[in-house]
Amino acid sequence: MGEFDLITRLFAPIADPESALGLQDDAACYTPPAHHDLIISTDALVSGVHFPENAPADMVAARLVGTNVSDLAAKGARPVGCVLTLCVGPQWDSSYLEAFAAALKTHLDSHGLPLWGGDTVSGPTALVSLTVHGVVPRGEMLTRKGAGPEQDVYVTGTIGDGFLGLKEVQALDTDERAALTSAYQAYAAPTPPLNFAQHLRALASCCMDVSDGLAADLDHLCAASGVAMDIALADLPLSEAADAYLGAGGSWQDLLSGGDDYQLIFCAAPAARDDLAVLAQNCDVRLTRIGMSKSAQSGPCRADFIDPDGQSLEIELRGFRHF
Amino acid sequence: MGEFDLITRLFAPIADPESALGLQDDAACYTPPAHHDLIISTDALVSGVHFPENAPADMVAARLVGTNVSDLAAKGARPVGCVLTLCVGPQWDSSYLEAFAAALKTHLDSHGLPLWGGDTVSGPTALVSLTVHGVVPRGEMLTRKGAGPEQDVYVTGTIGDGFLGLKEVQALDTDERAALTSAYQAYAAPTPPLNFAQHLRALASCCMDVSDGLAADLDHLCAASGVAMDIALADLPLSEAADAYLGAGGSWQDLLSGGDDYQLIFCAAPAARDDLAVLAQNCDVRLTRIGMSKSAQSGPCRADFIDPDGQSLEIELRGFRHF
Repeated sequence: MGEFDLITRLFAPIADPESALGLQDDAACYTPPAHHDLIISTDALVSGVHFPENAPADMVAARLVGTNVSDLAAKGARPVGCVLTLCVGPQWDSSYLEAFAAALKTHLDSHGLPLWGGDTVSGPTALVSLTVHGVVPRGEMLTRKGAGPEQDVYVTGTIGDGFLGLKEVQALDTDERAALTSAYQAYAAPTPPLNFAQHLRALASCCMDVSDGLAADLDHLCAASGVAMDIALADLPLSEAADAYLGAGGSWQDLLSGGDDYQLIFCAAPAARDDLAVLAQNCDVRLTRIGMSKSAQSGPCRADFIDPDGQSLEIELRGFRHF
Repeated sequence: MGEFDLITRLFAPIADPESALGLQDDAACYTPPAHHDLIISTDALVSGVHFPENAPADMVAARLVGTNVSDLAAKGARPVGCVLTLCVGPQWDSSYLEAFAAALKTHLDSHGLPLWGGDTVSGPTALVSLTVHGVVPRGEMLTRKGAGPEQDVYVTGTIGDGFLGLKEVQALDTDERAALTSAYQAYAAPTPPLNFAQHLRALASCCMDVSDGLAADLDHLCAASGVAMDIALADLPLSEAADAYLGAGGSWQDLLSGGDDYQLIFCAAPAARDDLAVLAQNCDVRLTRIGMSKSAQSGPCRADFIDPDGQSLEIELRGFRHF
């Protein structure tokens, strides 16, 4: 399948009927709503780095959409459109590309994210990238800045499943993946709480997504907001898989620094507790209060993980580095 | 240099002070002007495919910006911002990356294109991609559609230098590139006529950029607009290098299908000739009328290249395909 075939046969049918101009032009055209800011983010996935070289097409598409949508969720943004960069690797034949395009449509649709356009090239290694666009009412974007002391710290979903899912993916071959666990699903198809996030703009003082690991990302939030945090280890939301991992001698270190969670962490005033509980229920999101922010005057802007004995956990590798 | 160092040391200093949030957050934020459409395009360059593996950092940055800005020019758009995807290959060490970031700033600045954000990853092959954003007054975007019969066909700059420049790049090693020709410059640092293009919205009926070769791209314009074209070979604007190439037995075929020109082709009513001449002069753009559009009722929607004897030139490979 050549470049133009690929665009005409696979991508034009899944592109946005209005903005994409049938993928027949040099650019897409989008009319932004009045009195809104545009939120822009981009995330790339490299074969053999961000997904296994033999990953099924659905996993590549789901992770591509999930990781990118996670950044829009972190800003409280409503998705409006995206463009795809597809670098086709030597092993991606026609049937693989067909499966990829179909899965891409499924996952974009599930988040209401239209495909505006893109670029297809080929190279020795497969790489996929999205640039995603969202909108927020002007001036209302959530940022990492804004937490004060004495605020509640929250996390959505569960923590550590991205790490455990990656372990599963690395350990299993394709046939064995029939027995999928929730951890595998969390890695293979992250589903950031996008709807929930759009209502969060009115309630949270700061927000970001957990992509590099809870420990590193809470530190980022602390640094940006100029606060410290006490996080209660016993309160961290874990899946059955993560519970079992700890029970079998696995370390907190792994769950807190493994990355790939694509959940949200944010702060909010204690007065918002009831509203947040209702919102989480309405959006079918698991929401957990895991600690409190505090003034950083007496120490560094970082999160301390406190065990039930009141001891602070030492975490060595605080988060994933791409290189 | 790790991922966070790279962002903090090299890219944060060249990022847009307002929209990029210091590259310290999950996304960029841009406030679009009222009553405008947003134009979005993306173009990726792969090492060994779109630039030589040993290309100097300045060539990579210049080609990345030039090819992307060319799409904004094709739409008559004013650039407002871009995001970068940088996949660092094994040979791109710290000093190469420093040179790349510096060159990127130079070339973005020359087009007034702020850097909003991006993503840095590493992989076995270097790849760079931009997603560029521009604005046009609502509903005024130039498209490939819109040419009627009996309109003038124009091209900016000269044709075939991208092809000749690539030949030079492939033939020469780094030391020998001291003797740069205009063709080498056209390949290494394309400079689309962006200012000119923004004034073209009022004068042209359709427009696109020449990236795949003049023959293929005129065909695209014909197909989108539902017209045919007669193009006079003798009127095509050539550089001294291209003249010399033809004089030495080189073929029109190569110059018309080699790609990488990043000039504009467009149609306009004959009544616009004087205005276009003044505009070209004001913008210091070489502008050449190369033929006329005609009804396609009697034949295919394509461009015919007519030689001085009135014969139609056969062109076999009509344009570059990425794979």
